[in-house]
Amino acid sequence: MPRITKAEIDEMCARALPWVGIMGLTIEEIGKGTCRVRMAGKEEFLRPGGTVSGPALMSLADYAMYVAVLSAIGRVELAVTINLNANFLRRPKPGDIFAESRLIKLGKRLAYGEVSLYSEGEAEAGPVAHVTATYSIPPGD
Amino acid sequence: MPRITKAEIDEMCARALPWVGIMGLTIEEIGKGTCRVRMAGKEEFLRPGGTVSGPALMSLADYAMYVAVLSAIGRVELAVTINLNANFLRRPKPGDIFAESRLIKLGKRLAYGEVSLYSEGEAEAGPVAHVTATYSIPPGD
Amino acid sequence: MPRITKAEIDEMCARALPWVGIMGLTIEEIGKGTCRVRMAGKEEFLRPGGTVSGPALMSLADYAMYVAVLSAIGRVELAVTINLNANFLRRPKPGDIFAESRLIKLGKRLAYGEVSLYSEGEAEAGPVAHVTATYSIPPGD
Amino acid sequence: MPRITKAEIDEMCARALPWVGIMGLTIEEIGKGTCRVRMAGKEEFLRPGGTVSGPALMSLADYAMYVAVLSAIGRVELAVTINLNANFLRRPKPGDIFAESRLIKLGKRLAYGEVSLYSEGEAEAGPVAHVTATYSIPPGD
Repeated sequence: MPRITKAEIDEMCARALPWVGIMGLTIEEIGKGTCRVRMAGKEEFLRPGGTVSGPALMSLADYAMYVAVLSAIGRVELAVTINLNANFLRRPKPGDIFAESRLIKLGKRLAYGEVSLYSEGEAEAGPVAHVTATYSIPPGD
Repeated sequence: MPRITKAEIDEMCARALPWVGIMGLTIEEIGKGTCRVRMAGKEEFLRPGGTVSGPALMSLADYAMYVAVLSAIGRVELAVTINLNANFLRRPKPGDIFAESRLIKLGKRLAYGEVSLYSEGEAEAGPVAHVTATYSIPPGD
Repeated sequence: MPRITKAEIDEMCARALPWVGIMGLTIEEIGKGTCRVRMAGKEEFLRPGGTVSGPALMSLADYAMYVAVLSAIGRVELAVTINLNANFLRRPKPGDIFAESRLIKLGKRLAYGEVSLYSEGEAEAGPVAHVTATYSIPPGD
Repeated sequence: MPRITKAEIDEMCARALPWVGIMGLTIEEIGKGTCRVRMAGKEEFLRPGGTVSGPALMSLADYAMYVAVLSAIGRVELAVTINLNANFLRRPKPGDIFAESRLIKLGKRLAYGEVSLYSEGEAEAGPVAHVTATYSIPPGD
C-alpha cells in the first residue's frame, strides 16, 4: 500500500508545484515505491525533428521519481533531487509519453531509483529514455 | 569566434524551440564552445520551500549546453542530448538563475561539456547545480 | 542465443585484458544482452570498514556490461565505455560480489544498459550498487 | 592549507587501502579541496588497442576525489563514494596518467567535485576522461 494517495499528491501539486500542471503530468498508478505518470503531448515541448524535448522528458522523470519516493515515505514535501542522470535512447515521436518509476534503495537519508520513459503505443520498441535519480530525505521531527 | 550568432540562435528558437521562450531563457554571452544564459525567475517554476525546481534548472542547463555546442559546430539543429547528469548542490533562492557552459571535448560524433548554475547575486557562494552533458552530432552532408 | 561464448571471451581476456584475471572476475552465465559475473572476495580490494572498495565494484560492473555488449554484437574487441555512472547503495560485506547486467538499448553506434551488484548471500537485501553505462561500438567493416 | 598531509594519507593507504599501492597511485600535490595524483603506466591495466582500461581510470579518479575530500575535512577514513559518473573522452596512450581533482561543494553530509584525467605529455590535447563524484561524510563525534 502506498503511504500517500494520488488525491493527496494532486492537492500538493495544485498548491505548491504549478509546473506539474503546466507540463500536463498525470499520475496513472501509484504503488509502494513505484508509479506510472503520463505526460500529455503538447506542441510547445517539441524540438527540431518533431520530437519531444529533453527537458520535458527530464521533468516527467523527476516527477515520477518524486511520486515514487512519496509513495514510500509519505507526505514529505521537502524531499529534493540531489542527482538526476538521464540517458536519451531513441527519439520519441510526438504524442503522449509515460514514465514508470521504481525505488531501488530507500535509506534514512537518501532514496535512489530508476525511471523508464516510453512513447505511447511504442513501448515494445524499448524506452525512449532511462533515468536514475537520488533524492535527499530531510530528517524527520 | 563563435560559429553562430545569438541572433541566429534566437531565430531558430522562436521558430522551433518554443519552450525556450516559455522558460524565459536569454543568451547573455556566446564564445566558441562557451556561453552564458539567464533564466528569468518565474513563480510557476518554484517548488515547496520557495526554491527553483530541478526541472527548470535542468532545462536551463540543457539549453546552455546546446548553445555551447552550436557555438563550436555552427547551425546543426539536430544535435541532440544523449546524456545529462545533474547534481543539485544548494537550494537556489527565488529569482534569476544564470548558467555558464563550456565544452570539454568536441569530437566528430560527440560533444561533451559542463554547466555551472548560479543564483543571481550569490555566485560567490558557489553553484546551485553542476551539470555534465553529452551531445550527439549528426553526420554532416 | 548469445553471439559469443564464455570460452571465447575468456580467451580474449587471457590474451588482452589481464586485469580481468587480476580482479578475479568469472562469467557465470551469458545470455543475449545479459550476463552474470562473479568477483572473488580478495583482501586487497577491501577498504576501511572492511567493505569492498568502490573501484573494485566499478571494475566488475564495467566488465559485466562489456560481456553483455559482446553477447549482443559478437566479438568486437574495440567496443569502449564512453560513460559509466555508478551509484553505491549499501556497504558490501567482505566476500564475493556478483553482477547482473542487461542491455536496455542496442543501436548501431551506441549500446546502453544497467548492472546491479549484489553481495553473495544477501541479494534479498537489495543491490550494493547500481550502474548504468554506455558503450561506443566501432563501425563495422 | 590542506587539513591532512600527503604523509598521513600515504600511511592510511599503506595500512588500509592496499589497492592504492597495487594501482601505482602517488599523490603529487595536495591543496585544500584539490589534489593531483599520478598513476604509473602498468602493462596489466592496458586493454585491446593498447590503451589504459576504464576501470584503472575510474580507480585513479575515485582516489583523487577521496584525497580532495580529506584535504578539506581532515582524517575521516569512512568518507565513502555514493555516486561516480565517468565520461571517457579520448583513448589514453599507454603510459602515466595524472588526475587533477577539485571540490565544487563541501556540505556537512555530502561533498561533490570533479576530476580531469590527462595522459602524461598530452595535457594540451584535453582530458582523456572527466569524472564527477559525490562523497558521503559520516556524522562527526
